[in-house]
Amino acid sequence: MPKDITHTPTIFERRESAARSYCRGMPAIFATATGSELTDTDGKTYIDFLAGCSSLNYGHNDPDMKAALIDHISSDGIAHGLDLHTDTKAAFLRAFDTHILAPRGMDHRVMFTGPTGANAVEAAMKIARKVTGRTNIIAFTNGFHGVTNGALAATGNGYHRGGAAIPLQGVTRMPFDGFFGADTDTAAQLDAMLSDASGGIDAPAAIMLETVQGEGGLNAARADWVRRIAKVAKDHGALLIIDDIQAGCGRCGTFFSFEDMGITPDIVTMAKSLSGFGLPMAALLVRPEYDVFGPAEHNGTFRGNTHAFVTARVTIEKFWADDSFQKGLNEKANLINDRLGTLAALIPGSTQKGRGLMRGVDVGSGALAGAICARAYQNGLIIETSGSEDQVVKVLAPLTTPTATLRKGFDILLFAARETLAAQPQKTVE
Amino acid sequence: MPKDITHTPTIFERRESAARSYCRGMPAIFATATGSELTDTDGKTYIDFLAGCSSLNYGHNDPDMKAALIDHISSDGIAHGLDLHTDTKAAFLRAFDTHILAPRGMDHRVMFTGPTGANAVEAAMKIARKVTGRTNIIAFTNGFHGVTNGALAATGNGYHRGGAAIPLQGVTRMPFDGFFGADTDTAAQLDAMLSDASGGIDAPAAIMLETVQGEGGLNAARADWVRRIAKVAKDHGALLIIDDIQAGCGRCGTFFSFEDMGITPDIVTMAKSLSGFGLPMAALLVRPEYDVFGPAEHNGTFRGNTHAFVTARVTIEKFWADDSFQKGLNEKANLINDRLGTLAALIPGSTQKGRGLMRGVDVGSGALAGAICARAYQNGLIIETSGSEDQVVKVLAPLTTPTATLRKGFDILLFAARETLAAQPQKTVE
Amino acid sequence: MPKDITHTPTIFERRESAARSYCRGMPAIFATATGSELTDTDGKTYIDFLAGCSSLNYGHNDPDMKAALIDHISSDGIAHGLDLHTDTKAAFLRAFDTHILAPRGMDHRVMFTGPTGANAVEAAMKIARKVTGRTNIIAFTNGFHGVTNGALAATGNGYHRGGAAIPLQGVTRMPFDGFFGADTDTAAQLDAMLSDASGGIDAPAAIMLETVQGEGGLNAARADWVRRIAKVAKDHGALLIIDDIQAGCGRCGTFFSFEDMGITPDIVTMAKSLSGFGLPMAALLVRPEYDVFGPAEHNGTFRGNTHAFVTARVTIEKFWADDSFQKGLNEKANLINDRLGTLAALIPGSTQKGRGLMRGVDVGSGALAGAICARAYQNGLIIETSGSEDQVVKVLAPLTTPTATLRKGFDILLFAARETLAAQPQKTVE
Amino acid sequence: MPKDITHTPTIFERRESAARSYCRGMPAIFATATGSELTDTDGKTYIDFLAGCSSLNYGHNDPDMKAALIDHISSDGIAHGLDLHTDTKAAFLRAFDTHILAPRGMDHRVMFTGPTGANAVEAAMKIARKVTGRTNIIAFTNGFHGVTNGALAATGNGYHRGGAAIPLQGVTRMPFDGFFGADTDTAAQLDAMLSDASGGIDAPAAIMLETVQGEGGLNAARADWVRRIAKVAKDHGALLIIDDIQAGCGRCGTFFSFEDMGITPDIVTMAKSLSGFGLPMAALLVRPEYDVFGPAEHNGTFRGNTHAFVTARVTIEKFWADDSFQKGLNEKANLINDRLGTLAALIPGSTQKGRGLMRGVDVGSGALAGAICARAYQNGLIIETSGSEDQVVKVLAPLTTPTATLRKGFDILLFAARETLAAQPQKTVE
Repeated sequence: MPKDITHTPTIFERRESAARSYCRGMPAIFATATGSELTDTDGKTYIDFLAGCSSLNYGHNDPDMKAALIDHISSDGIAHGLDLHTDTKAAFLRAFDTHILAPRGMDHRVMFTGPTGANAVEAAMKIARKVTGRTNIIAFTNGFHGVTNGALAATGNGYHRGGAAIPLQGVTRMPFDGFFGADTDTAAQLDAMLSDASGGIDAPAAIMLETVQGEGGLNAARADWVRRIAKVAKDHGALLIIDDIQAGCGRCGTFFSFEDMGITPDIVTMAKSLSGFGLPMAALLVRPEYDVFGPAEHNGTFRGNTHAFVTARVTIEKFWADDSFQKGLNEKANLINDRLGTLAALIPGSTQKGRGLMRGVDVGSGALAGAICARAYQNGLIIETSGSEDQVVKVLAPLTTPTATLRKGFDILLFAARETLAAQPQKTVE
Repeated sequence: MPKDITHTPTIFERRESAARSYCRGMPAIFATATGSELTDTDGKTYIDFLAGCSSLNYGHNDPDMKAALIDHISSDGIAHGLDLHTDTKAAFLRAFDTHILAPRGMDHRVMFTGPTGANAVEAAMKIARKVTGRTNIIAFTNGFHGVTNGALAATGNGYHRGGAAIPLQGVTRMPFDGFFGADTDTAAQLDAMLSDASGGIDAPAAIMLETVQGEGGLNAARADWVRRIAKVAKDHGALLIIDDIQAGCGRCGTFFSFEDMGITPDIVTMAKSLSGFGLPMAALLVRPEYDVFGPAEHNGTFRGNTHAFVTARVTIEKFWADDSFQKGLNEKANLINDRLGTLAALIPGSTQKGRGLMRGVDVGSGALAGAICARAYQNGLIIETSGSEDQVVKVLAPLTTPTATLRKGFDILLFAARETLAAQPQKTVE
Repeated sequence: MPKDITHTPTIFERRESAARSYCRGMPAIFATATGSELTDTDGKTYIDFLAGCSSLNYGHNDPDMKAALIDHISSDGIAHGLDLHTDTKAAFLRAFDTHILAPRGMDHRVMFTGPTGANAVEAAMKIARKVTGRTNIIAFTNGFHGVTNGALAATGNGYHRGGAAIPLQGVTRMPFDGFFGADTDTAAQLDAMLSDASGGIDAPAAIMLETVQGEGGLNAARADWVRRIAKVAKDHGALLIIDDIQAGCGRCGTFFSFEDMGITPDIVTMAKSLSGFGLPMAALLVRPEYDVFGPAEHNGTFRGNTHAFVTARVTIEKFWADDSFQKGLNEKANLINDRLGTLAALIPGSTQKGRGLMRGVDVGSGALAGAICARAYQNGLIIETSGSEDQVVKVLAPLTTPTATLRKGFDILLFAARETLAAQPQKTVE
Repeated sequence: MPKDITHTPTIFERRESAARSYCRGMPAIFATATGSELTDTDGKTYIDFLAGCSSLNYGHNDPDMKAALIDHISSDGIAHGLDLHTDTKAAFLRAFDTHILAPRGMDHRVMFTGPTGANAVEAAMKIARKVTGRTNIIAFTNGFHGVTNGALAATGNGYHRGGAAIPLQGVTRMPFDGFFGADTDTAAQLDAMLSDASGGIDAPAAIMLETVQGEGGLNAARADWVRRIAKVAKDHGALLIIDDIQAGCGRCGTFFSFEDMGITPDIVTMAKSLSGFGLPMAALLVRPEYDVFGPAEHNGTFRGNTHAFVTARVTIEKFWADDSFQKGLNEKANLINDRLGTLAALIPGSTQKGRGLMRGVDVGSGALAGAICARAYQNGLIIETSGSEDQVVKVLAPLTTPTATLRKGFDILLFAARETLAAQPQKTVE
């Protein structure tokens, strides 16, 4: 971090760990936020196309969640209840049962894990191993499932894997849909390797995947591939785990990312936008026959974040009790897709990625993607990259973003892209 | 779960995972809480000697934290900010710097990990391995460090370890202070095994311990033993990690559990009462030379729980800006110790355990400890057991519990113990 | 093991472990052997198309080796010398230097490991990890590298892997050449997975392969594929290990199986026919810059089998000092290929496999292959199956087998095949 | 390796791996050997107090074994038979049954593993895991069980462990008898750690030990300790594996090292002197109920070393068919003990180690022990050190060494010790 000699180190520089990250490229000090906009301590406002990495699908400080939460706190509602019964947990479960699980024919049980996505993933992997007595779990190239050691074994990213500084165990990596190009059927390859008695892939406890790989570059698996993977899992006695932490909660246009695919996952992991308000909350949904943990066999002090139950209940009742919210998502997805098409047209060799409201453009290099996002930030748009080389400009705006704000955000993005391209040294496109 | 035939399954029975635990022995549905008391939906009030497993050291819904949090939410303060800079994070860091770190001569950096204790432990273990290029971490009998796979390897409890259903890696277990009785110097044994070139214990990246093992049965390490372990770590090139998740934040009578021991840990893990309000928050403190993670090398969506920063700042400024709060803890510790002495006297062969306000009585069997706690619950006291056989009746009352409430809680506990003992089949004490 | 009631258990049944294997299908008690024939205690003679799984490439009891060995023993030559210098080791090394390494431009050092192929493989894997500081080793579907835990991790066979009863570590499995059919370039796939920063395959210490997979079903890699794998290894900083234990020592028509492929492996593992006489001997050849073990860092009591040095020297001087022996191999390979073509023509859907004098026919099912071999055994031919389903009838006759004996052996084999097919229930070939 | 400029590198320097070891300190080129003496190519004779690390308990080129082996080879006996039945295997098994197993009441089955001790250890560990469904194996400080990855996990020596360059799995290390001094009961400590439900030691598949640790410094476990370990194994559902590779075959004064201890191991591993002639051979003995490998589930090309069966049979019939040989061992053990007492008396602070004919003196430093052995070598005695710091001068003379030769060897050793001590810089003994 270059400093001029008169610089007084900030409290962050003096005391916060070097592991801090987003703040490096976006160094404003943020103070308030509503809907799809944040404001920093200097009063500058930013449009948010990051949404807490899809943790704020319903925007910042939704007024109904806010009111419910203030009411809960004001009336001395439970703030921390371990996994004791509370009225707020009951209310959330009832809403989730009534409006999410039951209408989709899902008989899953809800396990409230420690309030991080990684914790839900760890629990899912443990359950699969406990159920099957097998240790091997199949995960995919460019998958991202968290950075605690069990989950990190399933994460493909080499930078994060290296952080463990220990060989990671219990996971076999396989190519995701499209990894070798659209014409190579990697589901069939997986089946072939598992089917050969000397294939050398131990019989799997589970196959785990994201239907759209958020961190991995917005790689959207085709529904048919997911169905075939589900069949491979079933054929080989493995559980199917869908990690819906980033792609779920409406991000793909439906509550679950997989619900139009004709599959029933054995386990679904959820976090990020589950609480709706950005509060830490994670859960997994597990079919009753696989709900095999004994009491507290997987536990964690914060596994009952009561404040999150309050706001999570509001998200269900406000957005998912009928189909009006979901219907509106399609139109926004089209707008996003359309404007990203404009972006892609600016950049030779770029490709559009993703699905639903989880879309981006692979611009071919991390340097270019980073430069575009940095310039957009200067102009008041918070937007990030993803992908193995950070080569994808990723749009994860709140699902509730008004159309005008979306358009305004894209104006900033496209302007930034044009400026960035103009500033680049001339390169002959071959 | 025995049911009479007319029982309609509750929403918990229908939809919550079998992993739910505390609610099984304490089936009330809780609705509100203040200070050291909870109230259920039937209006029954309970004194809280569990305090969210030491996550509520300052009691439930502390009025100052409550006011600050409501104010933050009302004014649309950031609820979720990833690891961006926020005014609330800055304010917390300044308070923590001014009132906690600087006065104790600690130059540690603060890393906000995913908001679970296990996540902080995972990060600590990863750092130690990355710093040293070694993989082995020494942990102790009866240690409890969480249930995600990396941390679980360090956890001694066989029930939780079994949940992984995979061999856990990278940790060598050694006997804690007193494990073989007070006369066996297990620090010397550890040193001997590490010093022998054929001792077969790989050179350690770290030695990790709790100074008082909360889940492990309130085993309090002697200061001298901790110092000698610190020396063993230094002599063998290992980092010293103190897991202060349960024993820290005042629980042992000082902010850190180790601060009177004459050691400086290389890494300290914190969670539970760090936010003060029971909100999910975890952090680790790491000496600057070991702050080696690259940006987001260890990451997590909820690593900046802004609500928790708000309340955590209040805890520091309200309770730790001067020594008045700490001074009062000693008296309460004495009262607890005294009343537990009365409990121990009732039960032949029982022993008092713990330190500070983290104390209990080993009553010799999990069945007896469980029976006492169950009876106490009936009479309005929330209290739990710990230890490898759940044989320790454990008192973790909020540090802010008024003396009168403490006394009332102990009256219930002692009454429960007497009733339980009276109800037991006569047994000749030998 | 079915017994009639009057059966007295043999000493083998009473005292030898159930792990015994070949003797189950070929229960004769063998007493003597010369060249390509064995004789049992009843005086019945068998042609040997198994050759100790390619450990007897020069036949049984070669007269020159036999004479040299008897001379050595008679004159009280060293029988066991640890890794002390002996005149016999010097003589072997000189012959190996002069006639094998130097003419092929190989500057490799020779490491005498414990006298099993698996031991050489373990040493090779350790060296690669020590050299690179990486732990991951790439191995292939249907590879067989031994059954001690380090080597077994690299072995694909599920039955053998299961014998470990522990998850095996440190190896990533990739599809061998042709595994997905001739048109899928699995070298390119490997490169793609290693090249993607989020591919999730840890940077490899080594890529290890057999150019012809003996146990795996006589899958012969194409030279071009091997060259491209060598390039992938180089590009990604990995050592190239060729496991030439079964395919080496002339089996493929040249001393090393890879010598016409235009590659220079960093490490070559050797065993089986290295001693020539069937005596236990293993070695690895390692380029000087990777000869990184300290003295005895990898050791073993029997790492200097002096009797084996005696006969091994004879093999080099007798068969490899000029090119006459090698030249004759081609003709035999053609004969074998031709007769296997006849076999294949009998069985619809069967395919010829292998290369050099390491050939067979995939008859489509283990049951059929086993039945043919069993019938051949009845008629005096020792022959075995290989492949993940034991579906390949495998010919591994001594390289020195006289043409007449080869023909006689094939006569038995073809007769057995015809009888077996005739005895099968009629099946409409679709 | 310092060379003067006119030095022509030897074939060993040019082509043998740097892993070569014994030859560095003892650089003669050996040519012949009989009984307890070796002769080098210059005609110099050496007394052998190393005996192939106890692989030559019956001396070099025993005339009866030699005759039998020459006869076998001359008559074209099978040299390599995989695990087919041979007359020589039958003869060995009958002799072993009649003279070893039956008289000792042992119902064990014999499994011929790959012909290295490490291979037998790997097989033993696999069986224990397969039988119990557990993965953890308890091994001890200073234990040495081989250097292939499975066995190496059980080996304590840090230098050898480092050679793996990968974290070793599946073994928990515990202090051997006497590791913390004679007064600490490490069997009770192991029991305590296994008995505590939060002890953090996973339930063991096996406890594996050498009754005398040969490489580890001639640490002899007390019989009572071994019995208590056997009980701990039984109490915790673990198999007891005695690794008798170095201490067995008469080395401790009885055929098995443990036979006077009142225990029956579930598995015994054997190698080194099993063939008697120094030929590679290894086996494990396993109780019938644990003989659980399927056919070839653990296999290896050289698992039937027929030459070794020939000589191994002679050892049994010549030395163990009656008790005359065993009776004579006691007297030699006394002589050795007596002379080592003389050696110990020369060196302040030294201690005598070992049991039977497996004895030595811990002289306090590897430098001193090495200097004494180097000087002895100059004077015609082959002798080595052992222990974690190579601090033990170790006598492993052939059991058949004539008394006069023993005395002569000790004369050389004592002379070397006196010279070494005299040559040392004066040091005040405190």
